[in-house]
Amino acid sequence: MNAEIIGIGTEILLGHIVNTNSAYLSRKLASLGINVYYHSTVGDNPARLASLLKLALSRSDIIFTTGGLGPTVDDITLSVITRVCFKNLDFNKDVLKDINSYFKRKGLKTTPQDAVKQAYIPEGAIRFKNTVGTAPGIFLKHWNRIIIALPGPPRELNPMFEKYIMPYLKKKGCAGDWTIKTRTVKTTGLVESLVNKKVKDLLSMSGDITVGIYAHLGEVHLKITAKDKDEKRANKRIKGVEKDIRRRLKDYIYGIDNDTLEEVVGKFLMRKKKTLSIAESCTGGLVANRITNVSGSSLYFKMGITAYSNQAKEKLLSVSRESIRKHGAVSKVVASEMAKGIGNLADTDISLGITGIAGPTGGTKKKPVGLVYISIITGKKRSTKEFRFTGNREEIKYQTSIAALDLIRRSL
Amino acid sequence: MNAEIIGIGTEILLGHIVNTNSAYLSRKLASLGINVYYHSTVGDNPARLASLLKLALSRSDIIFTTGGLGPTVDDITLSVITRVCFKNLDFNKDVLKDINSYFKRKGLKTTPQDAVKQAYIPEGAIRFKNTVGTAPGIFLKHWNRIIIALPGPPRELNPMFEKYIMPYLKKKGCAGDWTIKTRTVKTTGLVESLVNKKVKDLLSMSGDITVGIYAHLGEVHLKITAKDKDEKRANKRIKGVEKDIRRRLKDYIYGIDNDTLEEVVGKFLMRKKKTLSIAESCTGGLVANRITNVSGSSLYFKMGITAYSNQAKEKLLSVSRESIRKHGAVSKVVASEMAKGIGNLADTDISLGITGIAGPTGGTKKKPVGLVYISIITGKKRSTKEFRFTGNREEIKYQTSIAALDLIRRSL
Repeated sequence: MNAEIIGIGTEILLGHIVNTNSAYLSRKLASLGINVYYHSTVGDNPARLASLLKLALSRSDIIFTTGGLGPTVDDITLSVITRVCFKNLDFNKDVLKDINSYFKRKGLKTTPQDAVKQAYIPEGAIRFKNTVGTAPGIFLKHWNRIIIALPGPPRELNPMFEKYIMPYLKKKGCAGDWTIKTRTVKTTGLVESLVNKKVKDLLSMSGDITVGIYAHLGEVHLKITAKDKDEKRANKRIKGVEKDIRRRLKDYIYGIDNDTLEEVVGKFLMRKKKTLSIAESCTGGLVANRITNVSGSSLYFKMGITAYSNQAKEKLLSVSRESIRKHGAVSKVVASEMAKGIGNLADTDISLGITGIAGPTGGTKKKPVGLVYISIITGKKRSTKEFRFTGNREEIKYQTSIAALDLIRRSL
Repeated sequence: MNAEIIGIGTEILLGHIVNTNSAYLSRKLASLGINVYYHSTVGDNPARLASLLKLALSRSDIIFTTGGLGPTVDDITLSVITRVCFKNLDFNKDVLKDINSYFKRKGLKTTPQDAVKQAYIPEGAIRFKNTVGTAPGIFLKHWNRIIIALPGPPRELNPMFEKYIMPYLKKKGCAGDWTIKTRTVKTTGLVESLVNKKVKDLLSMSGDITVGIYAHLGEVHLKITAKDKDEKRANKRIKGVEKDIRRRLKDYIYGIDNDTLEEVVGKFLMRKKKTLSIAESCTGGLVANRITNVSGSSLYFKMGITAYSNQAKEKLLSVSRESIRKHGAVSKVVASEMAKGIGNLADTDISLGITGIAGPTGGTKKKPVGLVYISIITGKKRSTKEFRFTGNREEIKYQTSIAALDLIRRSL
């Protein structure tokens, strides 16, 4: 089965919103073994939508539309679909029931007149429930083609697709006899060109199993994609490549797929029953914030101090005035004293001190913007590392947070 | 002039990356008065790209392509364009010079053989410099149509478009005789339905000036869009609507366009020469992190403490054990004592205490997930507010940070 996806909405053509539905649906359809050959977007214009739909019907087995199902005059999707397919819009009791109960849940006694319009759907169509909003999803067979109309907001589209449409497509035999499986291996600590060097031969593989390299700020991800008729075999082949990648990149790899560095760190801290405290200067609370994004982090994260001023460093973290005077607030010595200070204060197993220049101002020739020192104390072991990051203020902060989290990970 | 945008790349059709180029180009083209009627995406498949290009040439004056300009066999854009336009690929000395100097800057003595392929461009085409990568931008006239091929990575496309393509389009008379101007009014503190109620009549305006409402987590934005032949008149009309919106939403409005709450708060603190300290529990450093995202924040932000454990609250912030025992760590009293504690410690004009339950665990019937207390002390004035947020852990943290920043803003 070949599919295409049509996004409908003038706000997309004006660039007011980025269309993320096409990427979402493409990933889901790939996992079902359905090829997607085109994405298109058209405005709320009946003539242009009609011609695009006709074109789509001529070249694809399944056409997904997103958007244009609302109750306003701008919402033209269903009227255009019915016109192109020579059908009528019929009143549908079940849809009206769904809409009524939606407004009841919202505390409204009567359904607004506007919304009733949404109970008219193409004759012969099947409707899918919208658990979040009022616009139903529509499944319409037209000759040997299928049109599936979905609501535009991702928070409505995504649950509808996963809960109702995916099972329905499988039941109807639309799913392909192959599947696409992917697995993302996440690394940090090596720049893209060095990762690239280590896996170059894997990146040039073609055919049913491929590896792609994706550079993100402070991280490099390798995405393994396998296409196979047999799901198990696809997974097995991915496992094989993953093993190969692991052998080459070793502990630069911190996680897989949706793993985040803060989750991985959290898991290690839990497992080893270690506690953590962090003294931050240039990152301004970002590392503590990331650590505490993980549910259950209160079990291991005890204390964070953002000591932006020298007074705060001296008063709270017992950094010596002498050290600041002699070496500057951004120095190995001060980073180390910050780690020691917070460790003593919080009485934790692992403590971190972070100081640096996030910019854009405050840099000098000797100490440029992006210079960062991170000190880590674990039991009796202490070490301080120097980093030189580039980018804007937020980018430098973010890269520092990655380096800090990675130092904790490696210490465990 | 009517334009359309074609994204090229199998990775987009697989949903591995979200195509943001179309939205970016659409915004820029709208500001030039060029209508965009279609976005399309096609994979690295010569036949499908060729048929899409032919269709585009039949319906649009200007066709923008993005992606597929790299040196690998998958990069088919220029070869397909030349084929569709019955042209040849010609070796271009200037492009090779650009590529050579790119690799020189990178520290390589010789240009890799692969990259030399990129010096072949369609005959009669004009090339635009790529200041970030090696793929040149291409401007090709074909009968009364124009094809503009751009590199796929946004960090290459965006500067090329702004620096070279926009001025060139203006010079060539491609820019329309109208322009689209937008202005976003940003509010916080009122939910969407209440903002909606206050501006309902404005939202139903149609024609050359419109207002759209966009709900974000903890914020509601109103986007005023004016289309006019005269730029000044467009701006004047926008100003008129903005004035009307300001009259209705008053101090719920915190900023315009790219303003962030932390920048606005920073500006006020600077202007009034006030200093700030923050004690955080449930937000775990997020508020300090946002405050310190603003360059120059070290002038007013003195100290942040993330006191996750009760011990930290007692030891560092002098929260009384009695208060925690009696009212719980998540309580008005503790929030207030946290604010007082950090204020004393940091000796600042304004101090904040934040405590709450970010979830997903830790909630009770009386104190559910999402319950947050924020206490603010400014000079002799103290107040503590209760909030009840919904969402996942990060959403609750983020909404709390907005509420905290907004309390500081309102206190100024």
